[in-house]
Amino acid sequence: MTRLQAITGALRQKGVDGVLISSRKNVRYLSEFTGSSAYLLISPKARLFITDFRYQEQAGREVPADFRISIVNDSPEDFIIEKARSLDISVLGFESTVSYGFYQSLLRKGVRLKALTGIAEEARRIKDQTELRLIGSAIGRAEKAFRDIKPFIRPGATERQIALMLEDGLKKNGCRTLPFDIIVAAGKNSSMPHAQPTDNRIRPGDLVVVDWGGEAEGYYSDMTRTLLMNGRNLAKKLELYTTVLEANQRAIQSVASGVQARTVDKTARDVIKKAGYGEFFGHGTGHGVGLDVHELPRVSRVGRETIRPGMVFTIEPGIYVPGVGGVRIEDMIRVKADGAEVMTSLSRTPDVIR
Amino acid sequence: MTRLQAITGALRQKGVDGVLISSRKNVRYLSEFTGSSAYLLISPKARLFITDFRYQEQAGREVPADFRISIVNDSPEDFIIEKARSLDISVLGFESTVSYGFYQSLLRKGVRLKALTGIAEEARRIKDQTELRLIGSAIGRAEKAFRDIKPFIRPGATERQIALMLEDGLKKNGCRTLPFDIIVAAGKNSSMPHAQPTDNRIRPGDLVVVDWGGEAEGYYSDMTRTLLMNGRNLAKKLELYTTVLEANQRAIQSVASGVQARTVDKTARDVIKKAGYGEFFGHGTGHGVGLDVHELPRVSRVGRETIRPGMVFTIEPGIYVPGVGGVRIEDMIRVKADGAEVMTSLSRTPDVIR
Repeated sequence: MTRLQAITGALRQKGVDGVLISSRKNVRYLSEFTGSSAYLLISPKARLFITDFRYQEQAGREVPADFRISIVNDSPEDFIIEKARSLDISVLGFESTVSYGFYQSLLRKGVRLKALTGIAEEARRIKDQTELRLIGSAIGRAEKAFRDIKPFIRPGATERQIALMLEDGLKKNGCRTLPFDIIVAAGKNSSMPHAQPTDNRIRPGDLVVVDWGGEAEGYYSDMTRTLLMNGRNLAKKLELYTTVLEANQRAIQSVASGVQARTVDKTARDVIKKAGYGEFFGHGTGHGVGLDVHELPRVSRVGRETIRPGMVFTIEPGIYVPGVGGVRIEDMIRVKADGAEVMTSLSRTPDVIR
Repeated sequence: MTRLQAITGALRQKGVDGVLISSRKNVRYLSEFTGSSAYLLISPKARLFITDFRYQEQAGREVPADFRISIVNDSPEDFIIEKARSLDISVLGFESTVSYGFYQSLLRKGVRLKALTGIAEEARRIKDQTELRLIGSAIGRAEKAFRDIKPFIRPGATERQIALMLEDGLKKNGCRTLPFDIIVAAGKNSSMPHAQPTDNRIRPGDLVVVDWGGEAEGYYSDMTRTLLMNGRNLAKKLELYTTVLEANQRAIQSVASGVQARTVDKTARDVIKKAGYGEFFGHGTGHGVGLDVHELPRVSRVGRETIRPGMVFTIEPGIYVPGVGGVRIEDMIRVKADGAEVMTSLSRTPDVIR
């Protein structure tokens, strides 16, 4: 089934006659257009691609013949609603992620609007071969960059120096954008799951959390490794590390087609709870990765989705103890008919740097 | 007048008793919080800062005492509406840029919602001393990076190599993020205002448009220079260049407190029209720059704003002739009581590279 067929196939079930796709990633997913401003109007009868003069040339090059391309410079809303009418769309679905302001500008007589949640995002959960290849390539670029800079992660270096080197490596390996600002968090900062790199130097005894991702043709990867600097309380830190590693491994083993996403979360969470650190694991166990670095499925306490072959998501349990530090180990896995294939190839053995 | 006073002062005129600020940049502008998820609930009686556990530590460090900080992990919407009720807010303003889905999740009995367009964005048009300093610093970092790589912009180099070097320089100069993907567009590509860098090599006779920006503590800069490679049709290209330069200079001279933004646009446009290239200048003449790289005021045919001291915006006329190439010269200016001060210090003399 093609990506477009997945959308048209879902229209009736969603209670609409056609759908307006406007989010950049979903436009790209369905039309291959990489520019920043375009709309797709999709119904069983028609596939329209709408952009403005700035992207005329690019659209002609990128958008496949499935679509009819229209260039509209002023008020695309008028054009969209007029087209919807002429295509006999009496209920037009739109993405609930659009701004309230855009929604208001679409309100017109004669076409009823219906907000849809995730019509394209649901299709995007299951990756096709092209997507798996690009995600694999985004992982490869991220791993190569990390391997190259790993020897520099040691006492004396600042968080920011490491982050810059890693970013530079990612770009040199071909990543055009990064999925998120790289996290390099040492010592006290490592107990903040979303710390920003500072000019603080790594010190002996620090836990150092590095969370980064790569990119390939719009697809992302996401991974985390935690390094231990030799020093005070090493035994305690190794205990945190091995607990998180066990949670990571057990969660990966629990992944199978047909399992609930929240069961995978619970598997990781139970390991951490049993070790006495339940209160220090405040986030979910994982999330889908693709054109967005956070997409469906959600692997968390509230993850109501069923895991199916073709899904790609992270497994990233963590423990964050204020005053001691944090550990997170994040891998990406791909679901196959017979279980999880781990896509990340970097070692998980605890690295004690002297 | 402080930033917060500008907001509370505008509430009555906007017809609301309080406002919910949720866009990341506006939250940062008003509360100094740099994390990615928080809400401000502001009324004449109260200033609440709402975030979740992930940002508790960071909020404590960054948010000034003007705000009362609340940590809410589940359903901030419930908390927000409950607080609005207890603060006697019967009409609550919200930003029309929120998603339609978020708007729906706020709908509750007892509190009427009213969409507001640009309540914080309007305040942000006038920069205070801190902001001017940071924008100046974002310009300085961008200019230094450009000066360092300029000798490499010559026949043989690829667009992508130049873009990577420039990006690397920006990061090394302290920019944590970039306002947009750098444009390096040579030859045929230079006639697309939004071209992405390719692996094409710069060739003799090419026009090379470089459009890039820097960052300093969240504030951006934006500038464009066009270089000429010696070769065929140089005279024609120099003619394009001097026309654009004249449009740039005349537009800058037309900036004064009290002038309409669209008059500045017209000044640039008239120069280009008179030279016979009117149809090849498809975009606006400029835009405000600050926490967003595109913000108010809009300096375009539809720019209905009056220019006032403290505004910072770009002046960036361009001519794009398919088959020949494009020229754009973009400076940043700051409005003072007695006219425009040009903030960009890079030379505008046509550079013919041999």
